[in-house]
Amino acid sequence: MKDLQTLSDEAEIRALTCRYSDCYDRADAEDYGGTFLVDGLLDSRAIGFGTAIGPDAVADVLRSVRPQQAHVIHLVTNHLIEITGPDAARGSCYYIARSRLHNGGRGEYVGRYEDEYRRTPDGWRFARRVIVPLLPPEAEGFA
Amino acid sequence: MKDLQTLSDEAEIRALTCRYSDCYDRADAEDYGGTFLVDGLLDSRAIGFGTAIGPDAVADVLRSVRPQQAHVIHLVTNHLIEITGPDAARGSCYYIARSRLHNGGRGEYVGRYEDEYRRTPDGWRFARRVIVPLLPPEAEGFA
Amino acid sequence: MKDLQTLSDEAEIRALTCRYSDCYDRADAEDYGGTFLVDGLLDSRAIGFGTAIGPDAVADVLRSVRPQQAHVIHLVTNHLIEITGPDAARGSCYYIARSRLHNGGRGEYVGRYEDEYRRTPDGWRFARRVIVPLLPPEAEGFA
Repeated sequence: MKDLQTLSDEAEIRALTCRYSDCYDRADAEDYGGTFLVDGLLDSRAIGFGTAIGPDAVADVLRSVRPQQAHVIHLVTNHLIEITGPDAARGSCYYIARSRLHNGGRGEYVGRYEDEYRRTPDGWRFARRVIVPLLPPEAEGFA
Repeated sequence: MKDLQTLSDEAEIRALTCRYSDCYDRADAEDYGGTFLVDGLLDSRAIGFGTAIGPDAVADVLRSVRPQQAHVIHLVTNHLIEITGPDAARGSCYYIARSRLHNGGRGEYVGRYEDEYRRTPDGWRFARRVIVPLLPPEAEGFA
Repeated sequence: MKDLQTLSDEAEIRALTCRYSDCYDRADAEDYGGTFLVDGLLDSRAIGFGTAIGPDAVADVLRSVRPQQAHVIHLVTNHLIEITGPDAARGSCYYIARSRLHNGGRGEYVGRYEDEYRRTPDGWRFARRVIVPLLPPEAEGFA
């Protein structure tokens, strides 16, 4: 049986993942970056955005990409979490990211986030998030 | 750490939200309305359906809209919940609502529900649900 | 209030459902079959794949269908679970299954899984999963 600590940790890690989506979609760069550890890695190479390490660099990813997007939503499902130590966990979830650009373009991206999480005094943070596309992107009107 | 009461409340609130979708999709007007408090507000103004207060009025929204829809599904993800008092909480989640009309029309609507919940002797209910579209709707063949 | 045992069981059943998707999508036939009881039933008649009983037969469903699919993802949401006995539960969830075939064909299938679960010494397993389409399929280029 899972104990209370495990269930609480899993709930907090699910909420971390929801905040990642929410901050990006609301264009809140600082809180988006703040979901990562000081040395946390966001690996977006598979979708052409390189890697970023730490909250400031992660926030800069949002600042460079998000302004082109008039509307965007990151839906996350199928979250599997494994607690691997007292302050460490790993997990994966599926995403559908759908956007509309100011120029009328539209895109839909579907794949999996492969994550590592660490507990800090301020709560769980991403130690690593790797974006792994699972279907070819569907995009129209991108420059 | 979240305590057992909080984890239990969050699980019940997630189930409330699933029942909202399930009742609508199965065209169960009475149980759909019953997910709301006596003075609970469903605010659908942003998608053109006005506001409804209380179970009967909410059920009437379903009774007026659902019959046009041959098939409909409301998928909900990214549920963030914050317990704000012993019997109160607020939260948000993303939705994808996809429908097919009897006339062959089809639509897809994507956005966020912004919710307030209250505990009653019969379980958690919606005190308020506001529908906030996040992407332009995609619809064909609507009259 | 839900007790710790119930919350733990619900979490394990959600994880079982995520593993079902994950194993299928990664083409891991043995682990996919292993999510079912020895006499567990996968009822895919509504989508044209018949029924399968037990891990080996369920694995064979994957072995016969999956190779045509170059890419596939099964997103699951709206999981409602009801514990019906000390070692038994039932539930339902929505799915979006999207695939791309090697021949360029593509399909999207949306519906509900209607499930029965049983606890075994090795964890929860499917006693029964019935696939219930809720929207007409959208497919192009299937032979």
